[in-house]
Amino acid sequence: MVVQRFLKMGTARSRIREQFEYGMAQAAIVGKENVYDFSIGNPSVPTPEAVADTVRELLKMDPIALHGYTPAGGCAEAREAIAADLCKRTGDHIRPENIFFTCGAAPAIIAVCRALAVENAEVILLAPYFAEYPVYTSANGLKPVVVPADTRDFQLHADQVEPYITPNTQAVIVNSPNNPSGVVYSVETLKALAEVLTRKSEEIGHPIYILSDEPYRELVYDGLDAAYVPAIYPNTVICYSYSKSLSMPGERIGYVCVPNCAADSADLYAAVAGAARTLGHVCAPSLMQRVVSYDTSLRPDMAAYDRNRLRLYMELTELGFRCVKPRGAFYMLMEAPDGDSLGFSERGKEFNILMVPADGFGCPGFVRLCTCVSYDMILRSLPAFHKLAKSYGL
Amino acid sequence: MVVQRFLKMGTARSRIREQFEYGMAQAAIVGKENVYDFSIGNPSVPTPEAVADTVRELLKMDPIALHGYTPAGGCAEAREAIAADLCKRTGDHIRPENIFFTCGAAPAIIAVCRALAVENAEVILLAPYFAEYPVYTSANGLKPVVVPADTRDFQLHADQVEPYITPNTQAVIVNSPNNPSGVVYSVETLKALAEVLTRKSEEIGHPIYILSDEPYRELVYDGLDAAYVPAIYPNTVICYSYSKSLSMPGERIGYVCVPNCAADSADLYAAVAGAARTLGHVCAPSLMQRVVSYDTSLRPDMAAYDRNRLRLYMELTELGFRCVKPRGAFYMLMEAPDGDSLGFSERGKEFNILMVPADGFGCPGFVRLCTCVSYDMILRSLPAFHKLAKSYGL
Repeated sequence: MVVQRFLKMGTARSRIREQFEYGMAQAAIVGKENVYDFSIGNPSVPTPEAVADTVRELLKMDPIALHGYTPAGGCAEAREAIAADLCKRTGDHIRPENIFFTCGAAPAIIAVCRALAVENAEVILLAPYFAEYPVYTSANGLKPVVVPADTRDFQLHADQVEPYITPNTQAVIVNSPNNPSGVVYSVETLKALAEVLTRKSEEIGHPIYILSDEPYRELVYDGLDAAYVPAIYPNTVICYSYSKSLSMPGERIGYVCVPNCAADSADLYAAVAGAARTLGHVCAPSLMQRVVSYDTSLRPDMAAYDRNRLRLYMELTELGFRCVKPRGAFYMLMEAPDGDSLGFSERGKEFNILMVPADGFGCPGFVRLCTCVSYDMILRSLPAFHKLAKSYGL
Repeated sequence: MVVQRFLKMGTARSRIREQFEYGMAQAAIVGKENVYDFSIGNPSVPTPEAVADTVRELLKMDPIALHGYTPAGGCAEAREAIAADLCKRTGDHIRPENIFFTCGAAPAIIAVCRALAVENAEVILLAPYFAEYPVYTSANGLKPVVVPADTRDFQLHADQVEPYITPNTQAVIVNSPNNPSGVVYSVETLKALAEVLTRKSEEIGHPIYILSDEPYRELVYDGLDAAYVPAIYPNTVICYSYSKSLSMPGERIGYVCVPNCAADSADLYAAVAGAARTLGHVCAPSLMQRVVSYDTSLRPDMAAYDRNRLRLYMELTELGFRCVKPRGAFYMLMEAPDGDSLGFSERGKEFNILMVPADGFGCPGFVRLCTCVSYDMILRSLPAFHKLAKSYGL
C-alpha cells in the first residue's frame, strides 16, 4: 500500500550511483589507484578555508540566534548580503524580498515548479538536461516536454524550442553552464530564446518563465561570463546553489531569486513560499545562511578545474574520440564511437574507466565524464583510454 | 498563472507570526520588557555548548568529506550512531538502513505521507494537532480526517478514533508529547489505539500505520518517559527532529526511522526515499548529520522548561483560568473563559499578553501559550494576567 512510482524511484539505483559503487568494489580488487572514476559530480576542489574561519567566528554568536528558526525566506541580514552582492555583480536592483533561501537548488527548482503547476501545465526541458528534472517536474504537477539536443554544438537554438511551446507552457528550464555538456549558452542564443518566448507569451496570453538553474554560474572558463538571464529576458526566476561554488554540496544551501522585473513577481514569490511550505520547508539551514552571506566574494579554485578539462579534452580528442569542449561546469560529453552509449560505458569498465551513459540526461549516444577529479587520476587514466580507443579501432 | 492555493499559503500570515510581529511593533511603543510574548515555540534554552565544540572538532576534517554529498539517507557513520543510540534506549533492533536523515521533521512527515498517498488515501489527525499537518497532508495527496479533541483530558481515546477509520485510512499521526497541548499520551491509551488499529487493519485488508511525530520526545517532566511506539504497535514510522532536543531548529536536521517490525518495512523505506527525491531531498545538511551523531547523549536543560511550566500553570490556574497541565513539550493550552478564543487572544493584547488562538490547531475555545520563554518574562507578565482575569470577572 505504498505509492508504486515512489517505491520505484527509491529502489531504482541511478546509473551514476551504480557506476560509483561498482568503482568502489573494483577498487578493492585492482587497487584504488587503478580505477578511473569519472562518474560522480562531487567537487574535488576543497571548500575555501575562509568557510571554516567564518563558521568558527559565527560560533561565538548567541547560539539561540545562530541555530534558531529564521523567517521562511531566510534571515534578514543574509538576504540583504545576497541581494547586495547580486546588485553589485549584475547591475540589477535585487532586494532582500526577492530572495528566498532554500535547502539547495533542488527544492528551489521544485518550489518554483509547484508554484507554476496550474492545471495541465507544461515545462520545457532542453536536452541535454540534468537527469533529475523529469522527476522534479512530473512528480510536482508539471508535464515535462523535451526539446531534443542539437548534437552539432549543444547550444540552445530558439527555433528548435518554438515548436514545443503550447498554450500550457509555463516555463523553460535553462541550465547554463550546463550539466552534463559543460556548454555555456551564448548571449545571442539567449536573446533569440527571449524573442521567441516574448512573442509566444503574447500569443498564448500568459507569461512563459525562464527557470534559470545556475549552480555552475561561477564555474566558467576561457574568460567567459555566464549571462545574467533576467537582463535578457525579464520573466526569469533564478535558482542558485552554493554546492559547487563553495564546494559544499552536502550543506544544502541555495536560493530562489524572483526579480521585480518578472511578471507578477510578488505573486510568484508568494506562491514559491507557499509551495515550499508544502515541501516541508521551514527555513534553510541557519548556520549556512550566515556562512554564505559572509562569504559572497569567495570563488572556487578554478585553475584546478580548468587544467583538468583542458587536459582531458586534449588527450581524448587526440585519441580520436569526439568530445564536446566544456566552457563551464565540470562535465564533458564524449560520443560513443559506435553510437551505443550503454555499450561504451560497459566497455569502459573493462579498462576500469567509469563513465555515465548520458541517456538519462536526454542525450543517447554520449557518455558524461566528470572533470572534477584529481589531475593525477586523469594522468593515470590515459593508458586505459588509449586501450579503450584501440578497442574501437580508433 | 500561479497556483492560487500556494499563493494563499505564501501570503496568509500565520496567526503565530502575526502575534509575533505585533509583539515587536508593540515593544517599540511600550518597551520590550512590557510585552509578554507567549506566541512562538522557539527554544529558549541555549544549544548545548558541546555542539559548538563538536563543530570546531569537525572543522579539522577534510572539508570535502565534511561538506560533501552524503548518500540520500545519510552518511554511514551518522546512521550507525543514531541506530546504536536507538537500540540502547529502546531495546529494539534498529539498524542504519532503517534511518533516513531529513532536513528536519517537516519533510520527514511529508515524505512518509507522500509514500502512503495511494489513490483516495486518508490520514487521521488527532486534535489538537500541529497546525501545519493539514498543509503537509492535503498538499501531498492525503485527505486529512480530523478526530475532535476530547477537551476533558486531551488524551487519546481509541474508541473516539475508530469511527473515523475507513478502508482508505493509511495512517494516524500521533504527536506525543503534543504540540499544542503538552499532553503525553499514556502507554494505556496507545495500547488501546494499537488494538483498534490492528483490528481495523485486518478488517480493511491493509496496514494502517502510526506516523509518530516525535520532536518533543526528550522533553518530558514529572519523571515520565515518552513511550517507544513501535514496541506497542509494530506498524509505526518515527519522524524525529533535533530542533527542540538540541535547541537548533534552524539547522533542519532530523530523520525518518522505519523499523523492521513495520509491515512492508523495506518497501516503505524505499518509497520514503523515492518520495523525498520528489521533494528535492538530496541529503540532510552534512555537517549537522555528523554533529547529531556525535552528540546522541545530549539533552536540553529541562530544569528551566520545567520551572516555567509549573510556575505559569500554578499562577494562571490560581487566577481562575482553566489550563491543561503540560507533562511534556513546552506548550500549555488555556481555555477562553467565555469560550471565544479569538476574543480572548485579542483581549490579551490589550494587556500586552500575546497568545495564539488554538483554532488552527483544531482546538477552538482555547489559546496556546509557549512556555519556552524566559522565567523573568513569566514573572513580569503576572500582573498583566491578573488584569486579564479581572476583565473576565474571574
